[in-house]
Amino acid sequence: MILLAALDELGEAGYGTFSIESVAQRAGVGKATIYRHWPHKLSLIGDAFRMLQDEGDPELATGTRRKKLERVVRHVAEVAKHSPFSKCLPALIDAAERDPEMRTFHRRFQAEARRPLIALLEEGVASGDFPRHVDPELTAFSLLGAIFFCRLMTSKPFDPERAGDLIHVVLGTGTAR
Amino acid sequence: MILLAALDELGEAGYGTFSIESVAQRAGVGKATIYRHWPHKLSLIGDAFRMLQDEGDPELATGTRRKKLERVVRHVAEVAKHSPFSKCLPALIDAAERDPEMRTFHRRFQAEARRPLIALLEEGVASGDFPRHVDPELTAFSLLGAIFFCRLMTSKPFDPERAGDLIHVVLGTGTAR
Repeated sequence: MILLAALDELGEAGYGTFSIESVAQRAGVGKATIYRHWPHKLSLIGDAFRMLQDEGDPELATGTRRKKLERVVRHVAEVAKHSPFSKCLPALIDAAERDPEMRTFHRRFQAEARRPLIALLEEGVASGDFPRHVDPELTAFSLLGAIFFCRLMTSKPFDPERAGDLIHVVLGTGTAR
Repeated sequence: MILLAALDELGEAGYGTFSIESVAQRAGVGKATIYRHWPHKLSLIGDAFRMLQDEGDPELATGTRRKKLERVVRHVAEVAKHSPFSKCLPALIDAAERDPEMRTFHRRFQAEARRPLIALLEEGVASGDFPRHVDPELTAFSLLGAIFFCRLMTSKPFDPERAGDLIHVVLGTGTAR
């Protein structure tokens, strides 16, 4: 409950005016309770994001690599469209610009989050499921980038129903649907 | 000088603590001078961004469409790597999340900025210079998205020297270098 309240506070207030007192009010607990577990706001925010990450990865055990890729891209689009993470992202990006500790946290967290996608692209190129011109990291940046670009720079979030279209555009004719 | 000072202030302080007084100090002018021309901080910030936009578009009159595309992508990568605009982007994204006027400004400004790229992709698909599977808007989101993803979510800005690689990955084998 405290971690969810921390995400609410970050998403609504932003990082600059994020306050433990306000998190305590949102969660209906005393400030002391929060400080006992999280002495700094970074540790509280970090744990809140880690909770989100543990909750939500798509299943990648079954199906073709193309299907798995579509599942991952659709999942990212759903998260970007509507989730506590997405609501906090502008605050997180701004905080990372101004606070070195937040910057380290944000970059590490993001690098871990995209690792399964890059691994899947690497496997698919090695196996021949994906075209040879696919550079796994650059392709991951393009797929994730299109989704986050829509979230952060346009008035319409990327539609998860278009996950297949996006993959078709970025991976090219070799993977026509 | 005042507009450059406004960009410095926004990039360093962020939107929440942006202050006209601090802009006046940076520019070495009185506050009254600024208020006379820009009664609200939004108008000052808006003019500052418009000044940047007027300064910097790449030449698109000559060369093949593939060359023009590379010029645009490289230009965006250079801007994202090092420019007053890029320094202000996290503040702008955060401000757009919290302030409806900034949101309207940011989205309109971005929509205008990407229009020449989308038009170029449309022309290239119509002429047959680019593969038919290229959806102009989705392709623009992928190209721009990869660059801004690196700026905002990774520890390394996108290398402008890789503009050709990015186009090759996103437009596919049909445009191998």
